[in-house]
Amino acid sequence: MRDGEIVLGPGKAMLLEFIRETGSIAAAGRKMGMSYKRAWQLVETMNRVFREPLVESSRGGADHGGARLTKAGETALSHYSSLMRVSSDVGADDLDAIARMLA
Amino acid sequence: MRDGEIVLGPGKAMLLEFIRETGSIAAAGRKMGMSYKRAWQLVETMNRVFREPLVESSRGGADHGGARLTKAGETALSHYSSLMRVSSDVGADDLDAIARMLA
Repeated sequence: MRDGEIVLGPGKAMLLEFIRETGSIAAAGRKMGMSYKRAWQLVETMNRVFREPLVESSRGGADHGGARLTKAGETALSHYSSLMRVSSDVGADDLDAIARMLA
Repeated sequence: MRDGEIVLGPGKAMLLEFIRETGSIAAAGRKMGMSYKRAWQLVETMNRVFREPLVESSRGGADHGGARLTKAGETALSHYSSLMRVSSDVGADDLDAIARMLA
């Protein structure tokens, strides 16, 4: 991982969601305007820092280039989504208060 | 503001806290390893994007270079701190779950 990079943030979570949706790391990266290389790097990083890989991919074979989330990938993504949801719910009043103070 | 810069994030909030603590924009910036110029820029940005300035400063005079938070500054900082506190409380279980999945 790059220095200071976070284990699972908005970019990686979105990449996981798009991999689930498209069944392809390349296609998921494209949806985010990300190079194929960068998308692969992010997946490799996640697979390394988590005890079990979050993404399973097959290069070649019938579904060549296919990728899908593992059970660990689904679990990690679901905790991340839950974290975002509850944080924004609970912080809504404070966020609104700050927004109302803006020029 | 720079493109994509957020109105009030961890950096600006910490700067506000240090300004309150030190009574000086320069000293607050120094505590964050920030140039005098950058600290002033951040303060100017905050004072511009909020309807009322968050920081009041006097160049020259008896307390030359002194700075303090305005009432709006105290209010914004307090909403920001509250937001961080409740978000991390409520997200603790999901964060722990993700942390336990790491290698």
